Amino acid sequence: MMSGAVQQKQDTVALPVFAAVTLALITILSVWKLKQFKYKLVNEAGVAMFYGLLLGLTVRLIWTDKGEQCPGNTTAANEQANTSNNTMLNLTPHGHVGNEKGQFSSHPEETFDLQVLFNLFLPPIIFHGAYTLNQKRFLANLGSVLTYAFAGTIISCMCIGACMYGFTKLMLLLSKQKEEFCLTHCLLFGAIMSATDPVSVLGLLSDLRVDLDLHMLLFGESVLNDAVAIVLTHAITTYTQMDAGLIFNPTAFLHAFVFFLRVLIGSFLLGLIFTVITALLTKFTRLHENPLLETSVFFLLSWSSYLSAEACGLSGIVAVMFCGLSQARYTVLNLSSEGRARIKQLFEVFNFLGEISIFGYMGYILLKFTCHKFEPHFISGALLSVFISRAFNIYPLSFLLNLGRTNKIPCKFQHFMMFAGLRGAVAFRLAVKVTAKEVSHTIFTTTLLMIVFTIWVLGTAADPMLRRLDIRVGVDPDENQEDRIFEIATERPDTTQGLWHSLDYKYLKPMLTHRGPPLTESLPQCCGVFARVFSSPRVQEDEEEELCEIEAGKNTLDLGETESQQGSSESDSASEHQEDLLDGDLGLGTAPAQPREASGSSTQL
Amino acid sequence: MMSGAVQQKQDTVALPVFAAVTLALITILSVWKLKQFKYKLVNEAGVAMFYGLLLGLTVRLIWTDKGEQCPGNTTAANEQANTSNNTMLNLTPHGHVGNEKGQFSSHPEETFDLQVLFNLFLPPIIFHGAYTLNQKRFLANLGSVLTYAFAGTIISCMCIGACMYGFTKLMLLLSKQKEEFCLTHCLLFGAIMSATDPVSVLGLLSDLRVDLDLHMLLFGESVLNDAVAIVLTHAITTYTQMDAGLIFNPTAFLHAFVFFLRVLIGSFLLGLIFTVITALLTKFTRLHENPLLETSVFFLLSWSSYLSAEACGLSGIVAVMFCGLSQARYTVLNLSSEGRARIKQLFEVFNFLGEISIFGYMGYILLKFTCHKFEPHFISGALLSVFISRAFNIYPLSFLLNLGRTNKIPCKFQHFMMFAGLRGAVAFRLAVKVTAKEVSHTIFTTTLLMIVFTIWVLGTAADPMLRRLDIRVGVDPDENQEDRIFEIATERPDTTQGLWHSLDYKYLKPMLTHRGPPLTESLPQCCGVFARVFSSPRVQEDEEEELCEIEAGKNTLDLGETESQQGSSESDSASEHQEDLLDGDLGLGTAPAQPREASGSSTQL
Repeated sequence: MMSGAVQQKQDTVALPVFAAVTLALITILSVWKLKQFKYKLVNEAGVAMFYGLLLGLTVRLIWTDKGEQCPGNTTAANEQANTSNNTMLNLTPHGHVGNEKGQFSSHPEETFDLQVLFNLFLPPIIFHGAYTLNQKRFLANLGSVLTYAFAGTIISCMCIGACMYGFTKLMLLLSKQKEEFCLTHCLLFGAIMSATDPVSVLGLLSDLRVDLDLHMLLFGESVLNDAVAIVLTHAITTYTQMDAGLIFNPTAFLHAFVFFLRVLIGSFLLGLIFTVITALLTKFTRLHENPLLETSVFFLLSWSSYLSAEACGLSGIVAVMFCGLSQARYTVLNLSSEGRARIKQLFEVFNFLGEISIFGYMGYILLKFTCHKFEPHFISGALLSVFISRAFNIYPLSFLLNLGRTNKIPCKFQHFMMFAGLRGAVAFRLAVKVTAKEVSHTIFTTTLLMIVFTIWVLGTAADPMLRRLDIRVGVDPDENQEDRIFEIATERPDTTQGLWHSLDYKYLKPMLTHRGPPLTESLPQCCGVFARVFSSPRVQEDEEEELCEIEAGKNTLDLGETESQQGSSESDSASEHQEDLLDGDLGLGTAPAQPREASGSSTQL
Repeated sequence: MMSGAVQQKQDTVALPVFAAVTLALITILSVWKLKQFKYKLVNEAGVAMFYGLLLGLTVRLIWTDKGEQCPGNTTAANEQANTSNNTMLNLTPHGHVGNEKGQFSSHPEETFDLQVLFNLFLPPIIFHGAYTLNQKRFLANLGSVLTYAFAGTIISCMCIGACMYGFTKLMLLLSKQKEEFCLTHCLLFGAIMSATDPVSVLGLLSDLRVDLDLHMLLFGESVLNDAVAIVLTHAITTYTQMDAGLIFNPTAFLHAFVFFLRVLIGSFLLGLIFTVITALLTKFTRLHENPLLETSVFFLLSWSSYLSAEACGLSGIVAVMFCGLSQARYTVLNLSSEGRARIKQLFEVFNFLGEISIFGYMGYILLKFTCHKFEPHFISGALLSVFISRAFNIYPLSFLLNLGRTNKIPCKFQHFMMFAGLRGAVAFRLAVKVTAKEVSHTIFTTTLLMIVFTIWVLGTAADPMLRRLDIRVGVDPDENQEDRIFEIATERPDTTQGLWHSLDYKYLKPMLTHRGPPLTESLPQCCGVFARVFSSPRVQEDEEEELCEIEAGKNTLDLGETESQQGSSESDSASEHQEDLLDGDLGLGTAPAQPREASGSSTQL
């Protein structure tokens, strides 16, 4: 009591944060211990969620009599007083007091926590995933990834929506349900549940170290469908607000489509812009002499891509993913080796702690939040429709994709993808944002339960499932790293990729790094000033850099269409390295010799 | 507008965080550029504050018409509606709505930001400072540090209080001031301003790399006086609330003293407890096989010491400082070399970004906050009294200390200490917490201005001042690292330090690490079970560890009282290393041979 007067204000943050930190510690240690005892079934997300549930239960039991009320009971009071201490209640966008002043919403606790949590931890998780990605494999699978992410998510959404609508109507007929859900609510639920979660999928994939192609497909899909889910949720809420009902409205559809393109292209550009800034900074300044500064600047700029995208109403996840991919392709070449190691380690720690925090928090909210609305029929319907929609998403699309792919997606991959549709942070975030008043609690509760189910049941069963399906696991994670630096475009040389490759190799690489042919050659005469400004002031010195540079030869060579499923990853990576050496020599022999800019460091800022 | 409906909630956090990140980036880059151009005068804290001021000004100019009101005008309205969107207004502890529910205060914006900022960034800064401290030198200077921190801060507080009281009375007589300040308000201001700031002092010291003894004195003082300032502020507010006025109240005094001891000992114990947990975890488990886990656990446990202390109403700064000191002494010996490097780098990044964030935020608030109360006489009085109090603190105490010290504090050190009394985050935090309603705004404004003054003027002038005073700068920072591992107790072997040393060497080190004599020998027979449980399961292997272990010899040797001011730090550190080798051999020769526990890893958890 004595310290009360002075310290009170501090307590309000220190205590919850301390609880969270303790939770994270217990999670880390128990997962680690369980894994030592060969319980391969546990995953961090699930255990964090479990402890979160325990904490939520404790908090709720302790403060159960403090009279936290549900919105239904206090709506009138809330609207009058505008205090609304109970949280996440009227999940409407109208609840904002002083939003234009840059202040927080009127329910400070949960939504604010949530925002801080997502803004702090989601970017490093997605960035880490993209940054350590095997770019070659990703590009090779890009078409399939886009199909699953875009077409697949829309199919999922429609399918879940239709299933849920049919199911609730049936239940209403059998008079087993009181509440009525209109089609837009069902579609909204579909949009929320259609997005698989990059955080849990990444956790699962890096835990199990599955086959690289499968990794690409699952990770790419889970990251990119965030944009689709955001757009779908937005389009459906707009529809609801317009009271358009079931009538097809071409204007609204066009709006949604334009909005979709805006979100996708805007996020992509923001990700790229921050990479360009980072790359130019690290190229033209002496930041690499101070690894601490280098790391800080790299970290802050990469984080900015997420924040700026979210601040503009775009998809931060998509932006930071593109940022991670392009940073790994360009900026990393300008960094000092110590800076590179530090950045990797920093993101690793954030990634690790972030996953635990986000899932722990979701578990906590599930039991702490007092205004849940459990609709058993809605929940069982959701469970069923999630599986049905996933099947309708994966199998037909895989069939179509396999018609065009030389490197087919095997059936066992399809089964696993069908199975590994984990839901998580993205669905949670969308559910919190949902604006449909009456049903939002049912949707919120059901979403949380579906997340718990997919993480616990599907996440835990993933390892035995992989073994049953006989899918390669335990792939060396460093393989990615090896490949990343010596990556080459061995994909089928169709026109888009050829264009992309020449853009990448001829313009972006020389502009952003010290590699590639000088800009003065690749750019037309009229851009002479531009070319000189961006020309590399440094001359490559060590051998490793030379190796990277001789990608030059690649451009003129067609390595053939057969990028077959190589069995052993180690030999794969090693042979690639050798190829690099050989082709490099060939390339230097056949391609025009590259005169190097030796303008010295005069243009350094 | 299209994205408004769905994304609105996210914006409220993403945009401010994005602004903060951009600010940090600009600060980093401009400080770095300025330093490249040999502007040695700039320091991160000052530049961050400058950009914070700019941001605050911008935000204020943009939203100037949105009618943010001052408390004086809206107190009645606030108390009725309890919405109080304007910030930091009634800085009373009564303003908390639902505090017992673990929710945040009713002024969500600034105080919440502030709490998050301090809870996130203060611990790593202080921890980093303590963790990388030269422990030998710190112990050698411990007495002086304690004197400055405790006696000095109390002198400062009284002195500032008396000066301000006299000054305001004088101004009142000359009728140049409207507002009247009673003595308790002046003393409160004294308590706030008496604490020098560890964040800015550390920033300054690590920038300039001053002499190690001076470093110890300034850093130790600035960290430990946080506890004193908290206690003084608390005692004075309690006094004010008791309406005791000027009468000396022995009960209140006793209360304050007991509170002081509680805060100090409690914080110390909490810091130690978390070190013990970390050390035992790293000693008895195989955490060192996974550097990522090791780093995460170490980081979270160290952070916990701050959070738990703050949650208990103790001094988090003191707790995390002791935690840092003891982690560097014990836990670090159990870590893998990769884990050690990662931890150092992680804290470095946090330390670097934290300093920028905290000072940027202070600058931002200074101009963003609309309810400042500028009292020119109060401010000029404060400026004067801060210098007077610092002089009354440093010179007499140094004189007294020099009577007892063999290694005198030279006059030039005293001048610099007098000069380097930078105020910062601690004063700011106390000013925010101040509960005296009417004058709180004057105090808050004056505190902020004093912080800006000390950071900008004194911080910038520190480098020329050091050169004028001919104090050694540019000390190699790695010297600390070298010393830390091979640290030895060469202090005067008085009884306290002898006791401490044997406690440290005979009990703590063998219990917490794999070093030192086996507990089965040092503990009495009755504690046999205890000794066996905590005995090291690992046998030391490599040579470096052997070197550390042979500190054994130190105990029996008296290396003499003359720890003279060595001129060259490099030779200092090198010779110490050699001493270590020599004494180690001697020690092993004279001390009883240490039979090593070879119980294997059977007791591993």
